[in-house]
Amino acid sequence: MSYTIGLDFGSNSVRALIARCADGKELASAVENYPSGEQGILLDPNDVHLARQRPQDWLDGLQSTILSALAEAKQSDPDFSAEKVVGIGVDGTGSSPLPVDAENRSLSAHAQFCNNLAAQCWLWKDHTSHEEATTITKVSREKYPQYVAKCGNTYSSEWWWSKIWHCKKVAPEVFEAAYSWVELSDWVPSVLAGVKDPTKIQRQVCAAGHKAFYADDWGGLPGKDFLSEFDPALADLRDRLYEKAYDASHPAGKLCPEWAERLGLPEGITIAMGAMDVHYGAIGCGIEEGVLVKVIGTSTCDCAVVSADKKVPDIPGICGIVKGAILPGYYGVEAGQSAVGDIFKWWVEGVCKGSADLHRELTEEATRLRPAESGLLALDWNNGNRTILVDQRLTGLVLGQTLHTSRAEIYRALIEATAFGARMILERIESYGVPVQRIVCAGGIAEKNSLLMQIYADVTGREMQIARSSQACALGSAVSAAVAAGIHADFATAQKAMAGVKSTTYRPNPKAAETYNQLFQLYRKVHDNFGGQEATDLGRVMKELLSLREQAAKG
Amino acid sequence: MSYTIGLDFGSNSVRALIARCADGKELASAVENYPSGEQGILLDPNDVHLARQRPQDWLDGLQSTILSALAEAKQSDPDFSAEKVVGIGVDGTGSSPLPVDAENRSLSAHAQFCNNLAAQCWLWKDHTSHEEATTITKVSREKYPQYVAKCGNTYSSEWWWSKIWHCKKVAPEVFEAAYSWVELSDWVPSVLAGVKDPTKIQRQVCAAGHKAFYADDWGGLPGKDFLSEFDPALADLRDRLYEKAYDASHPAGKLCPEWAERLGLPEGITIAMGAMDVHYGAIGCGIEEGVLVKVIGTSTCDCAVVSADKKVPDIPGICGIVKGAILPGYYGVEAGQSAVGDIFKWWVEGVCKGSADLHRELTEEATRLRPAESGLLALDWNNGNRTILVDQRLTGLVLGQTLHTSRAEIYRALIEATAFGARMILERIESYGVPVQRIVCAGGIAEKNSLLMQIYADVTGREMQIARSSQACALGSAVSAAVAAGIHADFATAQKAMAGVKSTTYRPNPKAAETYNQLFQLYRKVHDNFGGQEATDLGRVMKELLSLREQAAKG
Repeated sequence: MSYTIGLDFGSNSVRALIARCADGKELASAVENYPSGEQGILLDPNDVHLARQRPQDWLDGLQSTILSALAEAKQSDPDFSAEKVVGIGVDGTGSSPLPVDAENRSLSAHAQFCNNLAAQCWLWKDHTSHEEATTITKVSREKYPQYVAKCGNTYSSEWWWSKIWHCKKVAPEVFEAAYSWVELSDWVPSVLAGVKDPTKIQRQVCAAGHKAFYADDWGGLPGKDFLSEFDPALADLRDRLYEKAYDASHPAGKLCPEWAERLGLPEGITIAMGAMDVHYGAIGCGIEEGVLVKVIGTSTCDCAVVSADKKVPDIPGICGIVKGAILPGYYGVEAGQSAVGDIFKWWVEGVCKGSADLHRELTEEATRLRPAESGLLALDWNNGNRTILVDQRLTGLVLGQTLHTSRAEIYRALIEATAFGARMILERIESYGVPVQRIVCAGGIAEKNSLLMQIYADVTGREMQIARSSQACALGSAVSAAVAAGIHADFATAQKAMAGVKSTTYRPNPKAAETYNQLFQLYRKVHDNFGGQEATDLGRVMKELLSLREQAAKG
Repeated sequence: MSYTIGLDFGSNSVRALIARCADGKELASAVENYPSGEQGILLDPNDVHLARQRPQDWLDGLQSTILSALAEAKQSDPDFSAEKVVGIGVDGTGSSPLPVDAENRSLSAHAQFCNNLAAQCWLWKDHTSHEEATTITKVSREKYPQYVAKCGNTYSSEWWWSKIWHCKKVAPEVFEAAYSWVELSDWVPSVLAGVKDPTKIQRQVCAAGHKAFYADDWGGLPGKDFLSEFDPALADLRDRLYEKAYDASHPAGKLCPEWAERLGLPEGITIAMGAMDVHYGAIGCGIEEGVLVKVIGTSTCDCAVVSADKKVPDIPGICGIVKGAILPGYYGVEAGQSAVGDIFKWWVEGVCKGSADLHRELTEEATRLRPAESGLLALDWNNGNRTILVDQRLTGLVLGQTLHTSRAEIYRALIEATAFGARMILERIESYGVPVQRIVCAGGIAEKNSLLMQIYADVTGREMQIARSSQACALGSAVSAAVAAGIHADFATAQKAMAGVKSTTYRPNPKAAETYNQLFQLYRKVHDNFGGQEATDLGRVMKELLSLREQAAKG
């Protein structure tokens, strides 16, 4: 019997999971909330776009969660011992780069940068660099179209180069002091492997792929000519980054003595290649061709794979089509919605000032509503639009309110808005030849919110399944570690043994689906106009919503 | 010393005010909430458009409030006695028609109709007859353009003929049983005057004017040919309505013995011509040429007057331009917003589930925000749009939400939305030659909410004043009664003696006005597209709101 550990670095907490390699049985897990900032995120009261994270929180958290999980595993299974752990896999949010010194330490570990927000990790949802993203998009479209074509023709403020360039502008002292920059999910494995030279870090292709414009086709990272368009210092930095990025079939290293001792694990066990949380989440959900995996959390990430034998075109508005990004041997297709759970949380906690009880109460009340009965239509852009508009400078919208509109109706409209946003993505990738027969969801919202799952089934017209593991990302990391350690021959075998879906399936209700088809046409009109796609005529939208509401009220 | 009583029938309560004719001193007043339905309004859980009122509530309420006010007046002023009351003025909401029998009793007083919603008063905000309004508009535009031209080229579901025709369709038994139909503010004076034949009721021109298509130019009410287009029964009804409607220089009658006894007032004192609440409110605010009066309550009514010597054109989207409607000798120009206070109430009480304390708290918090700082933009259409779109089939909209948007920011955005709606009206009437030098507001919101008043000043770029009386409508009724009783020679003299404004004036802040000019351009784009005026390009709206917010955050 062998076991692996999956580490999953989320926006607010880190999770460690111990899984049995033979069957994926989850022996034990532990979660630790990051202590810094607001729910683990460092904020700036003067700039809502800023979101940073303290790297030390990760190291403290991974140690305590692994130790807790090991203790729990011993208790729950007498057969288990730490000696039987054969590997560690790591996933995390991204693009979440941090500046490091020449010894691969976070700059924030230095006293003079300890409280400098620019020296921390620039969390995925940091949007301070939207101007840089706009310029990178513009220059790439004009002179280097091959780069931006790989990421939906628009480079995001959430990504690597936007953030590093913005750091150079607003915190030159940090940029100067940084020997190199690393993605969170590359850095943690490199720390566990004891890498002391940032240029020796084994970097994953999934974050590098579209978020850093990496491709083997053009020799790795983008050329210095391109980077010099923005700042010669970025071209210089290129020498201190990496030449080659790898898929998950390549390991990140071996557990170093220092961390083996700290964690009470065997020295030299395999550290799998790090990955974006959602990519290992997709593996934890059993991704394969024909399946769309949605990891639904604060935001949503959508993943699909297409065999590397096929030719996958660039898809407008789809932020990443990278070979090996999710599964070795497949193109990974990645999309996402910038806020999903965060929107519900905003509504229930931020506006209605409620807590978990109110989430439950509103869900119950919203469940009793029929599609279109609220008369409302919303856009799910409170945190911008990642796919298919790739535009952070967008905001939320709710329309159709009367003097009787209730908070539960708005709650449901917000869920529906995220479902419509999901359908926009689905229709876009399908129209470019990515097959989707069923949708597998992971994350607490998918597990707990059957209202949301049914609405998604009705809006998309697809069967919706739920990942068997409630810790799909961490499980995917553990699966990857099992492959890296040689326990399973390949990912398909490992997924079959360790991952899968629950028996519950949400199937579209034909009548609801028909109503949602009509609402979706209205959503698309509003989406296209406010999203800058087309100056649509919206003069009938409110009237059609009222008509649909009247029909719905009749039952 | 002589005194008059002003009776003001609002949406939820009736108010009686005793005023001294010499100087407008308010000796006493009393308010009674209507006991029926929800806050005095009969609702239908299956139809949010329905809003009715029980006529008996008015009669019970006027008696108890007059008796209370008389008792209080005696206590507060030893010089006062009921014998010195020389007249009663009545105003009320409209168009709020009720069906009556041949003895001028409300049909709802008959046992078989007591609980029939169609036999009650059809309150102004009842929108069940929107289909009828659409047909009346269409037919009038095509064949009888003179009628609809007087009401902004669109007939409303809130008005007389839409409601009566809808009653004929959905409750034919009520329509058949009705001998005639009367506006609330004509019916109450007729009851006080002991009128037992509905055809003998003295009807006001202000409600008749555009709400019933009455004009001396075409011989009173619209012809039977026109009414037969909709239903021959409406043409028959015309014979049982009225031939002539009057301005406020004509009295409604004399207090009948039965009501003199009930009220403890001298028999035979003058009952002034009834009027729409806002019209007498405008008089209570001291309306004159160059002044726009806004009575801000659940909804807003805007009134201006232009000398009858001038030629006032028909103004698109302005619902009423009627000679004598407000002041004898002037064209009355009437506009309005379908919901103002109701929107704030919906937000604070309906959505945020707070009470008066929360209104205060959100007002304080919203006061600390700068214009544009919320990044939000809203449309004030939760109850449709009365002016300038004249379209009840419109609904509310809020856009610009992020994950940090607070309830106070939305509260402020809703206030701003009503201010932008007010500016649309202002710009429309001014562009057609109605002068507006200053704005006088009445109503509790104007008195209590200095945030709203300042925003209105900043958005409109005008000085905003507040009526001296906090009971401007009731005071206007008392002023009219004083004129009708011959105490003052005319309205100008009576207004000078009895009405006026407070010393506080809200003046536009130039910097805020500049920001609001920019926001107003965005409001207009969204307004025009969703309002069916023009398929505007909204692709920059969210981005411009974000830019304005960033500027505002810098201070």
